[in-house]
Amino acid sequence: MRGYYTFFERTLRAFNDHSTVSKLLVISSVSGGGLLAFSDANAFQSYAEGDGKKKKVVILGTGWAGVSFLKNLKSSSYDVHIVSPRNYFAFTPLLPSVTNGTVEGRSIVEPIRNIARKKPFGVGFKEAECYKIDPVQKKIYCRSTDQGNTLGGNEEFTMDYDVLIVAMGAKSNTFNTPGVEEHAHFLKEIEDAQNIRRSIIDCYERASLPSISEEDRRRIMHFVVVGGGPSGVEYAAELHDFAHDDLAKLYPSIKDYLRITLLEAGDHILNMFDSRITKFATEKFERDGIDVKTGSMVIKVSDKHISTKEIKTGQTVSIPYGMVLWSTGIATRPVIMDFMKQIGQGNRRVLATDEWLRVEGCHGVYALGDCATINQRKVMEDIAVIFSKADKNNSGTLDLKDFKDVVDHISERYPQVQIYMEKKKLKTFDALLKSAQGNDNKLIDIETFKNALHEVDSQMKNLPATAQVAAQQGEYLASCFNRMEQCEKYPEGPMRFRGTGCHRFRPFRYKHFGQFAPLGGEQTAAQLPGDWISVGYSTQWLWYAVYTSKLVSWRTRVLVVSDWLRRSIFGRDSSRI
Amino acid sequence: MRGYYTFFERTLRAFNDHSTVSKLLVISSVSGGGLLAFSDANAFQSYAEGDGKKKKVVILGTGWAGVSFLKNLKSSSYDVHIVSPRNYFAFTPLLPSVTNGTVEGRSIVEPIRNIARKKPFGVGFKEAECYKIDPVQKKIYCRSTDQGNTLGGNEEFTMDYDVLIVAMGAKSNTFNTPGVEEHAHFLKEIEDAQNIRRSIIDCYERASLPSISEEDRRRIMHFVVVGGGPSGVEYAAELHDFAHDDLAKLYPSIKDYLRITLLEAGDHILNMFDSRITKFATEKFERDGIDVKTGSMVIKVSDKHISTKEIKTGQTVSIPYGMVLWSTGIATRPVIMDFMKQIGQGNRRVLATDEWLRVEGCHGVYALGDCATINQRKVMEDIAVIFSKADKNNSGTLDLKDFKDVVDHISERYPQVQIYMEKKKLKTFDALLKSAQGNDNKLIDIETFKNALHEVDSQMKNLPATAQVAAQQGEYLASCFNRMEQCEKYPEGPMRFRGTGCHRFRPFRYKHFGQFAPLGGEQTAAQLPGDWISVGYSTQWLWYAVYTSKLVSWRTRVLVVSDWLRRSIFGRDSSRI
Repeated sequence: MRGYYTFFERTLRAFNDHSTVSKLLVISSVSGGGLLAFSDANAFQSYAEGDGKKKKVVILGTGWAGVSFLKNLKSSSYDVHIVSPRNYFAFTPLLPSVTNGTVEGRSIVEPIRNIARKKPFGVGFKEAECYKIDPVQKKIYCRSTDQGNTLGGNEEFTMDYDVLIVAMGAKSNTFNTPGVEEHAHFLKEIEDAQNIRRSIIDCYERASLPSISEEDRRRIMHFVVVGGGPSGVEYAAELHDFAHDDLAKLYPSIKDYLRITLLEAGDHILNMFDSRITKFATEKFERDGIDVKTGSMVIKVSDKHISTKEIKTGQTVSIPYGMVLWSTGIATRPVIMDFMKQIGQGNRRVLATDEWLRVEGCHGVYALGDCATINQRKVMEDIAVIFSKADKNNSGTLDLKDFKDVVDHISERYPQVQIYMEKKKLKTFDALLKSAQGNDNKLIDIETFKNALHEVDSQMKNLPATAQVAAQQGEYLASCFNRMEQCEKYPEGPMRFRGTGCHRFRPFRYKHFGQFAPLGGEQTAAQLPGDWISVGYSTQWLWYAVYTSKLVSWRTRVLVVSDWLRRSIFGRDSSRI
Repeated sequence: MRGYYTFFERTLRAFNDHSTVSKLLVISSVSGGGLLAFSDANAFQSYAEGDGKKKKVVILGTGWAGVSFLKNLKSSSYDVHIVSPRNYFAFTPLLPSVTNGTVEGRSIVEPIRNIARKKPFGVGFKEAECYKIDPVQKKIYCRSTDQGNTLGGNEEFTMDYDVLIVAMGAKSNTFNTPGVEEHAHFLKEIEDAQNIRRSIIDCYERASLPSISEEDRRRIMHFVVVGGGPSGVEYAAELHDFAHDDLAKLYPSIKDYLRITLLEAGDHILNMFDSRITKFATEKFERDGIDVKTGSMVIKVSDKHISTKEIKTGQTVSIPYGMVLWSTGIATRPVIMDFMKQIGQGNRRVLATDEWLRVEGCHGVYALGDCATINQRKVMEDIAVIFSKADKNNSGTLDLKDFKDVVDHISERYPQVQIYMEKKKLKTFDALLKSAQGNDNKLIDIETFKNALHEVDSQMKNLPATAQVAAQQGEYLASCFNRMEQCEKYPEGPMRFRGTGCHRFRPFRYKHFGQFAPLGGEQTAAQLPGDWISVGYSTQWLWYAVYTSKLVSWRTRVLVVSDWLRRSIFGRDSSRI
């Protein structure tokens, strides 16, 4: 009990230090923002016009991005509406814990209407799915979710918008593998977690029946996780804990049939993490008896078998299973695909926005979270305009003053410049120039300029599809919306290289606060900023503290912590409900 | 907050006083038992024979009766197996609270395997449904519950038994009303409660959509409860509290559309309670705006309307609704019906057992709880054998000694005698005789004897289909099984009037500890033994205390109490999960 006491004490301390914790560790505020594009600078002029009527802002989705936007929106100059098939926000990082009953599903959700009614302005919520966006008419088509037989089928309606915030997330990516939709579990929604839980208990109960053959019992008790990313790894670890801590006691006669396999197509699991973490996780799983199979690509799932292709040998293997979880990444939703076709993004795989989160190719639509990626402009594409803008007297060369005037704007407009310099350990722009020039010449011509910057675009990276990114984007966009009028008058963004004046807002900039990979048995690995690696029990406490502080309300915080306490006292429940 | 504190304090006190509370209020042990029948006294001889092999006892069902039997079974001389489609026990009296999220479903369930592994003897559990009982071959046919597509359909198997404990409960009685199965909710399982909850939220969300017509909105927000028994009344009250305490804040624009109607075919609601309670409940519901319609019989349920026949006027009325809960009593399950046909009970509506809970017409089968009723023998049917047994010297009359020798046996064998005497306020049997005889004649002939007893059978009543009865029956039967060998040698039951010697066990005797009817708003009515009526806040505390102490394990106790605390602090959750 001492351990638990310590945990509780720490959590309490984390509560008390909440303001500090949230500043340090939580998806916290980004420093600024920047919204006016240089391509279509007039898109949002109307906000500042003050024609008396409030602009109608429609938010699609109640995940991390949408809710983070809603929570941070403070300005009362908008008429806000939300459309989502889920009338609650779910704290998805704890979904793997819900699968095993460590945390109760209800503890990690917060009704949207609860969040909405705390806003000083009215927020309309519609529980419905948007199935079509019409960016020309500025209209969305919605359908109520299926709700049993007494409500008379689906209800359809349309809504106008002035501004649309697309934050619908993504669907699971099956890579069109046959049988996945029909037979595999996903882990994106609360219902998924509850179904997985029920499925595991079903397998245990089924394997306990007297008429089951030895072969079938072995098959049923084989649980397969496809995908060695953080979600897959965490789920495999949670399942292992559930099986060994709780189920083994209740099903002593079949506990030795249990087998957990993790299939990963790549060379190793957790490939976005530092290799030390990957090694630690692989070794821990080996000790735990979780079978990690890398280089194994799933090509088909049938009702009782998974077929894989071993990448090294080309062999096809058929694996009998009882339950399979599919966790291999995300894909674009059909409604977004259709929207992309309409706005000329039909040849892309993911919806593209500019650095201010505005959807390219239409007006008044923003996209954030998993449903979009930022199409970061390359420095080399703009190098000529940047140079000519800096070269005020059209001399064909920049002197030091010209150069210093644009340096900050470049580094703000193109984040890859900063990343490149950090990587090369260059402290100032001067040093970058020097490394290109080879001498101390004070005048810089276009070729030297190009030389200095020609490698920076290699540092461009898509942001990961994580809750952290979505939440920061929502917060960023809300802060832009809050300061719309003010920044109209006093722009705070970088210089417009292709136009005149400055961008209204700073572009979105992601701050990485680290990533956790819980490995089971109160062991967690974390990769924190500055390449700080942390593994073990203490990281598990950090994980508890961070996740507690990140939870959306005091209600969910207390519920989750009391769930943890309940679990530590009574174990996890194994009832089939 | 003071109120809550007091509640918590009291609950804690109830915890500390647990041993006392459970003795006073809880479904507690009945004083004795009696198992050997006079009709087929050899049915259980084999238990005492001690042939080395343990008798295989199969329990069907994991409700109140089955679990109470299991929990109280202490003897290790049986090989115990349980077959049930639910691998958990659910504390059903709190189901209405689950419908509204006052208590979490998981808090009121206890895995059977958790209960089973605490027994000193091994207990086998199979998650399956028994679909056929073969009392001749002493075999049951089972089918696993449907468990998704990867487990390959239903698994079928058979099991032998030496003793079968039928405790499968009952199904909801629709009285063959068309449309009930398809459109109405029942409230018997945890899943039912969760579905009702989701359905209520669905109605609120649907009614909030912009495209819904005024008429439809009114319809959708009309919730109907059919049946004015304790369950229906409690659910209506819980729904009212949920709507007014929590949902009204979150759905301000539609809250005034809400209407709750309680339909009862009889003259008044709660008709098994004292008329003071009925009156109080009716008045409270009137104040709360719950529409109570008595004398209204449902004749049809369609997807959007309920048709009723008004008993007084004969009129047919069609009522539009959004959600309907059907709570009008219970009916026999098909598997029991089939079993009854096999054992010559085909013309009965409910499975009959004798006073020792043995199923009439077959060997080695017991039935308890909602799936059976006790077929209490009438005194007048046996009056001749009783008299001749008492008349030891065949004189045709009984003297006072003869009479005194049989008096206790009669009153133990025929509980209606005692009830009759209590009702007539007769303290001794002598007084009963006097009232029949009209004088003090010391010799009693058969006519006087008949006269004295001819009215007692009118006091025979079927036991109510409650958790209390089922739990007491389970406990009674377990205590018989525990003392099987001992009571074989030293029988403790009454004299066998038709045979020789005494019955091995006392017959089952129900002790009524009172009944609660929660009326919402922390108001509860209770009818306690001795016609003690209690209504109001204090009864609510009593309700909390009793229900807490009744819960099956410390785990569920803590979970339920912490759910109550959570609810009192944060309100109920309205997420659609």
